[in-house]
Parts: sequence; C-alpha cells; structure tokens
Amino acid sequence: MPFIHVRTNVEAPDIACELAKQRLGHAVEALPGKSEAWLMVEIDPAAYLWFQGSYEPAAMVTVSLYGGAPEEAYDDLTSRITEILSGIFQIEPDRIYVQYQETPHWGWNGRNF
Amino acid sequence: MPFIHVRTNVEAPDIACELAKQRLGHAVEALPGKSEAWLMVEIDPAAYLWFQGSYEPAAMVTVSLYGGAPEEAYDDLTSRITEILSGIFQIEPDRIYVQYQETPHWGWNGRNF
Amino acid sequence: MPFIHVRTNVEAPDIACELAKQRLGHAVEALPGKSEAWLMVEIDPAAYLWFQGSYEPAAMVTVSLYGGAPEEAYDDLTSRITEILSGIFQIEPDRIYVQYQETPHWGWNGRNF
Repeated sequence: MPFIHVRTNVEAPDIACELAKQRLGHAVEALPGKSEAWLMVEIDPAAYLWFQGSYEPAAMVTVSLYGGAPEEAYDDLTSRITEILSGIFQIEPDRIYVQYQETPHWGWNGRNF
Repeated sequence: MPFIHVRTNVEAPDIACELAKQRLGHAVEALPGKSEAWLMVEIDPAAYLWFQGSYEPAAMVTVSLYGGAPEEAYDDLTSRITEILSGIFQIEPDRIYVQYQETPHWGWNGRNF
Repeated sequence: MPFIHVRTNVEAPDIACELAKQRLGHAVEALPGKSEAWLMVEIDPAAYLWFQGSYEPAAMVTVSLYGGAPEEAYDDLTSRITEILSGIFQIEPDRIYVQYQETPHWGWNGRNF
C-alpha cells in the first residue's frame, strides 16, 4: 500500500506522466511484498517548485507506506525513481529528492490495516 | 489541530467539495478532543491520481495530527471518511486510502504547541 | 535537505510566491546546518483550503526534513514562516499551521543519505 507522490516544475505532457506512472508501478517492487496492485500514484506536473532557489527542472518525491522496509530496499527504490524521472522529465538526478514516510496507521476499504 | 488532505481524480464540482469539507468537519470528532474548530481541510479534485495502475475514481487521504490518538479512533475516522468520499464522489471504498501521520512538532499562530 | 511546502487559499500572484520562496530560503537557516543550498520549496496558491470551516485566508505549511532538529530551532522556524506568510499573503497568524515531519530516510542524486 505505498503512495508515491511526484511533484515537478516540469510542464510534462499527459503521455509523459502516464509513462512515469507505469514505470513507477514496476519500480515499487523494490519494496518487499509491494506491487502496482496496491500502489497509489499521483503526479503533479508544472508544480510551483524551486530547488536551491532556482526554477530549473527539479522533482520532490514522497513515498508513504504502511509499516516499513529494509534500508537496502529504500536505496534501491530511490535509485529506480531517480532514473525514471530523470529519463522521462529530463531532470538532473542531483535535483531530485525522494522522501520516505512510514506510518503504522493506514486505512483501506473503510478500515485500518 | 488535524489537517485532512483529500486528493481525488474525480472532477468534482465546487458544491461537492464544499459538502465533503462540511462532513469531514463532523467526522473529525472521531478523534478525542478534535473538532472543526481546529481543523484544516484541503480538497484537490481532478488530481492526476492512479490506483492499481488505473484511472478509475480513487482517493488518497492524508490525516496529519499533533500527538496521536487511540487505534479505535483512527478506525472510526477511516470508516467515516470513506463513507463520506464514497457517497459524495462516487468512489468505491476499496479505491480509497487513508494514511495517518502523527507528529510531535506542530506550529500555530507563530509558535509550536 | 528540508522541503517546505506551502498551501494557501489566497490567490497570490507569481511575484508574491517568488518573494515568499526567497524569504523562506533565509528562514530555513533557523535549522542548524540548513540553508537555501539544500532547500526544496513548493508553493500552492489558490488551494482549496478551509480552516475552522471557513474559506478566509489560511495556510497549511509542511516542513519535511531528514533527521531532526532541536525544539528551539522548530520554534524559531515556525515564527519566521508565520511572519513571512502573514506579511506577504495577508493571512492572520492564527490561521497558519506549520507541521513538521522528520524522517530517517531521504534520497538525493539517486541514493539515500
């Protein structure tokens, strides 16, 4: 049940966002037991976002998940996400942040896990 | 001082969002000591959001709060939120996630609690 | 590597957002070792946001950071952020929330810290 939220200041066309969504659906398999079957993805293109004070292409990604995952899995996912966004949206890897948020409380279908 | 953030890919009219906001103001009473008097609500309709790879109606809800609340209170709130969003935006309950984020640091009126 | 995310229901012009971004770049120095050189800022003006059930000017700010900072630093930052947003967007300080999210997992440039 991860939620991957991508915000970028790049004005990406729908087709690019759709492609990113598709690839993120595979990338999430870096987390043990996770797959696109449980994944929520949001992409905000053309966001009002600055990094280091500049409006050059950048992305802020938040990965929220129930419970947690091993450090190596997060490393792997960060690497995959960065590669996907860098490739599709033409963002330099050193202008992409990936932030992880673990939580013990997560609801689905009207009740909590 | 909770913050309830609703994102949905449904293109809901203003009146539906207003109604959802109103009902969430009551729903938050599921958390001990909380009420609309301290509630911040954001609704993002027409968000670029996918669940299970599909663009069918879905919603991602984040509930942020200072401190925490008992497990049963979260269960109750998840149930209420799901019912509200399902009813107003016509989203299947099994396409609605509710994520909880507790934090010990929260500022209001220029200083932290 | 903080990320400051500002959402407000005020329909602020670009120039006001740019100014807020600039000032937040200085304000973040309230956190030890942080500066604009590592700061990501997002501003969402004209968000669909209510506080206390009302649509009067309000703002919800989320500060995400790797690791943590002393309580006093957060107090100082809350005070600075509130002053900036209140001054630029004409929002009453008692209608501004600042929420802090610490996380031990943060990726940059394709790998985690």
